[in-house]
Amino acid sequence: MARLITGIAELVTNDAAFGAAPLGVLTDAALVVEDGRTAWVGRAVDAPAADERIDVGGRAVVPGFVDSHTHLVFAGDRAAEFAARMAGARYDGGGIAATVAATRAASEDELRLLLRARVAELRAQGTTTVEIKSGYGLRQADELLALRLAGEVTDETTFLGAHVVPAGVDRSDYFRALTGPMLDACAPHARWVDVFCEPASPHAFDATEARTILEAGRGKGLGLRVHANQLSAGPGVRLAVELGAASADHCTHLSAEDVDALAAGQTVATLLPGAEFSTGAPYPNARRLLDAGAIVALATDCNPGTSYTSSMPFVIALAVREMGMTPDEAVWAATSGGARALRRTDVGRIAPGCRADHAVLDAPSRLHLAYRPGVPIARPLDLDVHETL
Amino acid sequence: MARLITGIAELVTNDAAFGAAPLGVLTDAALVVEDGRTAWVGRAVDAPAADERIDVGGRAVVPGFVDSHTHLVFAGDRAAEFAARMAGARYDGGGIAATVAATRAASEDELRLLLRARVAELRAQGTTTVEIKSGYGLRQADELLALRLAGEVTDETTFLGAHVVPAGVDRSDYFRALTGPMLDACAPHARWVDVFCEPASPHAFDATEARTILEAGRGKGLGLRVHANQLSAGPGVRLAVELGAASADHCTHLSAEDVDALAAGQTVATLLPGAEFSTGAPYPNARRLLDAGAIVALATDCNPGTSYTSSMPFVIALAVREMGMTPDEAVWAATSGGARALRRTDVGRIAPGCRADHAVLDAPSRLHLAYRPGVPIARPLDLDVHETL
Repeated sequence: MARLITGIAELVTNDAAFGAAPLGVLTDAALVVEDGRTAWVGRAVDAPAADERIDVGGRAVVPGFVDSHTHLVFAGDRAAEFAARMAGARYDGGGIAATVAATRAASEDELRLLLRARVAELRAQGTTTVEIKSGYGLRQADELLALRLAGEVTDETTFLGAHVVPAGVDRSDYFRALTGPMLDACAPHARWVDVFCEPASPHAFDATEARTILEAGRGKGLGLRVHANQLSAGPGVRLAVELGAASADHCTHLSAEDVDALAAGQTVATLLPGAEFSTGAPYPNARRLLDAGAIVALATDCNPGTSYTSSMPFVIALAVREMGMTPDEAVWAATSGGARALRRTDVGRIAPGCRADHAVLDAPSRLHLAYRPGVPIARPLDLDVHETL
Repeated sequence: MARLITGIAELVTNDAAFGAAPLGVLTDAALVVEDGRTAWVGRAVDAPAADERIDVGGRAVVPGFVDSHTHLVFAGDRAAEFAARMAGARYDGGGIAATVAATRAASEDELRLLLRARVAELRAQGTTTVEIKSGYGLRQADELLALRLAGEVTDETTFLGAHVVPAGVDRSDYFRALTGPMLDACAPHARWVDVFCEPASPHAFDATEARTILEAGRGKGLGLRVHANQLSAGPGVRLAVELGAASADHCTHLSAEDVDALAAGQTVATLLPGAEFSTGAPYPNARRLLDAGAIVALATDCNPGTSYTSSMPFVIALAVREMGMTPDEAVWAATSGGARALRRTDVGRIAPGCRADHAVLDAPSRLHLAYRPGVPIARPLDLDVHETL
């Protein structure tokens, strides 16, 4: 059945065929959706006939957000650690152990319920594609369970056994597992392999370890992602670019060489300002990356330790307030940028053949995503449809 | 009918009778609500019998937010001005004229619909008391209309004819109206009079003008509020304290004398970090005020120019990230602090006899208001009741 969506005051397509780059904005627009795909995009006056007509009442429609970096499979919370950090304690990655303990102690059913509630929360705010990492199991069975559960709700699953070396485990033993039996068990359930490359943290991995872990993952058919340069201007970003990783995530501390490497390569710089918001750290400099020609994505980093936000609109608002992005650059980064970071061409834009993953805003313009900070103005278009019918 | 609310993992009462100051937190708590008032507060195990029982499922309950500073009666938006400011343009209060023009051009019915939609949005996020200012009419009939409309949705109405001198009007003529016929017409529809005291803005009012306007309002029985020290360390705060105003709002730029004056007086320092977020200005230093002993409130300043947020949880998160407040201080400031700024004792806390204005969080603790930035976790308890019944 073909559904015609009208009453779109402003449509962000992210497709230069429909308007000026990067957003390709159409005003007084319409869409046709059929079989879960966008079938037609254009001005309302040119709309074709359809089986059903939905009017969104003069609202803006944007591509559903692509949240390309989350850690949604976990139990417990770390609100007390957050409060202590706001009172001056510093983040070094050590608190992850608390979530690992709570996650291992939870049953499969508990973890599934928690994960599904989080995914529902994030979808209700307009996110339509989500990447989900393991990394709070840090034992073969627990990592495998996390990936299986994540696989029930998304295709974008990431094996992050290399989140930290778990407490009480010998580093070289764990490293051998990560590149051997644990990887063998987990790879069939993951699309990506990721590593927290951070020589400044005693819990994370140095460049040599990270390279071996990533290459082992690639040997199993996984795409590469790197937690890079969160706490220091370390080797992570350059390693990510050298290995052709899809994304280098965080990029909080970058040298001139790191910026040049990102600009010259195809690795997306995925910025996660929710983490800087909740750790009190300085924000990454998106302006510098954009001016150099790097591809920038925005994601939530949703996790219980350092960024327990699920709101892509909040991340957009932070990027504009704190990172030198224009509202339009931020909207692109949260949609097409995320799609690039996941090497997807079927999401993050609104064009014929793409998935019909659209978010509707309680606002006439995409500018309101930054202009109305903290207000939940985005929701999935399908909810709107149900209301209107 | 007495309703017993149970399943409250954590209850913030803001009443030292129930726990340590300032929040008076009870765990495993219950409430009885009758005739729109809280009738009983205590531990669940001690709960009395009631006609009906509602279980909130292990969530936290806090006093509904008291948003003591908003400008909700307006038409039009200023998204383009916002985008320009994010690209470097500076705020000096001049953009208010655009909203004045749009507001004057709107019909009464249009303004009523817009206002009610905004109030509904704000209530859906857990705000249960809202102050609403005029100030986008700046002509007698238009200011009067704004106050009449505001009075339909709240008792906390504020005459802010002294927002700016309207374009094309002689300053001394306007000043005479403000302290004469316009005040006479508006005072019966307002509880408060407010003035934008800011010598740094050519559009606003200096200390001499502000004093006369406030004293004239007091002569008509209105309580006093002042937009003070937003753009510079001007005379507004000390004037507010000297005149015994209920609140000095913004307090972005304070001298040592200003801080001392606030600490010594009963005037609440109402901080509005949404405005600093959306103008790119430096944040007020809440820590300095709290350490000096001043009373601090948090509010949204919801308006189309400089702070188009309606989210008190967002303001709480900003206060913790940017202004040196602890999560508990911020929650108090957004509830009891707002009530103090409105000289209300029946809202902002949960105690027998107070209004049954409660917010429920999709979280086990009030800490999540700062720990989960941008996520709409707060809603009115009454919605929850309807779901549960």
